[in-house]
Amino acid sequence: MDGDADERRLAWVYLSRVVQGPCAPLSALIASVGVCEAARAVREHELPQALRGPTAARREIDSAAEDLETMARLGGRVITPEDDEWPGWRMLGLDQLDTDRDRDGAVPLVLWARGPLSLQAASERAVAVVGSRCSSGYGVQVAGEIACDLAGRGWTIVSGAAFGIDAAAHRAALAVGGSTVAVLACGVDRPYPAQHDRLLTAIADTGLVVSEYPPGVTAQKHRFLARNRLIATLGDGVLVVEAGMRSGARNTVKWARRLGRPAMAVPGPVGSVSSAGCHRMIREGEAHLVTRAEDVIDEAGPLRLPVAESADADPAAHLHGAEAEVYAALPAIGSRLPRELAQQSGLDVATVRAVLPALELAALVGCDSDGWFRTRGRRPG
Amino acid sequence: MDGDADERRLAWVYLSRVVQGPCAPLSALIASVGVCEAARAVREHELPQALRGPTAARREIDSAAEDLETMARLGGRVITPEDDEWPGWRMLGLDQLDTDRDRDGAVPLVLWARGPLSLQAASERAVAVVGSRCSSGYGVQVAGEIACDLAGRGWTIVSGAAFGIDAAAHRAALAVGGSTVAVLACGVDRPYPAQHDRLLTAIADTGLVVSEYPPGVTAQKHRFLARNRLIATLGDGVLVVEAGMRSGARNTVKWARRLGRPAMAVPGPVGSVSSAGCHRMIREGEAHLVTRAEDVIDEAGPLRLPVAESADADPAAHLHGAEAEVYAALPAIGSRLPRELAQQSGLDVATVRAVLPALELAALVGCDSDGWFRTRGRRPG
Repeated sequence: MDGDADERRLAWVYLSRVVQGPCAPLSALIASVGVCEAARAVREHELPQALRGPTAARREIDSAAEDLETMARLGGRVITPEDDEWPGWRMLGLDQLDTDRDRDGAVPLVLWARGPLSLQAASERAVAVVGSRCSSGYGVQVAGEIACDLAGRGWTIVSGAAFGIDAAAHRAALAVGGSTVAVLACGVDRPYPAQHDRLLTAIADTGLVVSEYPPGVTAQKHRFLARNRLIATLGDGVLVVEAGMRSGARNTVKWARRLGRPAMAVPGPVGSVSSAGCHRMIREGEAHLVTRAEDVIDEAGPLRLPVAESADADPAAHLHGAEAEVYAALPAIGSRLPRELAQQSGLDVATVRAVLPALELAALVGCDSDGWFRTRGRRPG
Repeated sequence: MDGDADERRLAWVYLSRVVQGPCAPLSALIASVGVCEAARAVREHELPQALRGPTAARREIDSAAEDLETMARLGGRVITPEDDEWPGWRMLGLDQLDTDRDRDGAVPLVLWARGPLSLQAASERAVAVVGSRCSSGYGVQVAGEIACDLAGRGWTIVSGAAFGIDAAAHRAALAVGGSTVAVLACGVDRPYPAQHDRLLTAIADTGLVVSEYPPGVTAQKHRFLARNRLIATLGDGVLVVEAGMRSGARNTVKWARRLGRPAMAVPGPVGSVSSAGCHRMIREGEAHLVTRAEDVIDEAGPLRLPVAESADADPAAHLHGAEAEVYAALPAIGSRLPRELAQQSGLDVATVRAVLPALELAALVGCDSDGWFRTRGRRPG
């Protein structure tokens, strides 16, 4: 790898401020020559044509060290693709998009973050809950109920901290002590909307506030669309609780569909304009109708193994990634504690802890006072 | 054909009372030997094994002449497959069902009817609107609004005269002077439910009350399921406005699906038990979500010609039956009155009048003070 760790971090941060948002040609250059060499090329304007425009305005500004200091003062950090908490497998969908078609579909260069959660662990089992800013009392209630249920079962609620449904979803997760991630279209140092200053502080206290924009960057219209792709990227699925006919939630649903994530929508009274967008998405096959947390888990759950039918098959055949590794680390008979599973699998304990409930949900593992065990080994037949 | 017209009518009526409901083996026997010979075979018990059971209890009762008198006194009639108003093309779906699998899926022997409408004309463009007997205020309102809109546009509302959604749909059609057909699970001389005596009288005054059961037969559980197949049969589609998880409306939807008719359901608040069945049907792909009359017409409309794309194609290529004949009877340039179209096509005027609005809906024909014309001939390009 080019440069040392500090040098690479400064290069990521410099480039993040230069392009301010997704930039597929820059991601391609970094993949090809490394981040330090890419930063040098941008600084010296030795660039392929596609990168000259996007870097021209700010390539002479290098406030990387200052940006890192600003974030440290805020108790925040930058997360680069080289960091352990980078949710690499979540980004695979973006990585596979045809960025010629989806111009804003690139993997973010870095993510700026405030809050105690590991982004990787928080997004391991997560649902995006989004919807109308002009929500009805019905929508706020339903968003709150479903988000409460999901957060209470260990699902992270990802949303955009907007008025209406977004705020209801974040608040519900906070209320039950669950995990929640707010993805902003501006720097994480800026409360947006301003009225949600306290909400964002509360999220940063126990969850995560993240953004691909460096500190100080203001919210602008095109940034909301790019932000929506990150909301869709960080969840196992996108749930729309209320949406008018021109709601931004439909944009998030489109990202979910491009990324291969299930899109879901909650119906409502047919006379309600706040539900009209949900009804249209269901009617046009863009989203599945769901009415409660169980439906969302059915759609978005990482494991949909039909347990009854798997008696003769290898139950782990459907698993991949950390789930497969944790399952493999469990003995056929007997129990293990999460730290033992971490040692055995080489994964960190947070990841093991994040994966186990998903395996439990799929009825593959159970848990008692001795630790976690494979359910197949305990059952007769 | 065996026997004269009166003799055959008496044979149909006799057999209708003997089997009281759908009886596929009897329909097969009639198709094979004619109705008079079938009636003789039943009377004399010279029957294939499959018909002995279903005819044993009542084959010795021949009250056909009396039944016809009873109906005449009620201002009603029996409609046999030999009558002009028999909706033969509606019955094609039932005729093609595998009656070994769908035991109650047979074409009815006859239909008993009260009311001034021709069953054939009334069912030419019709939607079944059904739902929960324990409807909510929301459900009654939505059923009323959609049925009003549909009836006001010339669609016949078919339903079952039950409490709740059924009654709301019938009443809405009556309120706008539209056509409505109530299909009963008992004789048309019996008001069922008794509290709907006045509603049924109002329907019989301007619409139709029909049943496959002879006068005097009481409503029994299995008859509601067979009745539901007729409700599905008589419409271009089935719309469920509200349904609990165990609603009979789901049975009507199943018939619609077997018959190849679109099934539709209206969503509602997710907390409402009256909408839970609708949500399940939408979620499981058994019914399409609709929110208003336009959606229903989109789904159930007999013609879904994409007008803009048909400039180079023969617009009549998608038509069949009476629609194709009426369209063919219209000149490329100039207008015709319905009676001229009837002469030209050999169809009766009522059929022509029933078909024209469907063609108009598909933007194939228009109407002005000179009569009806093809729209293609009037448009530039």
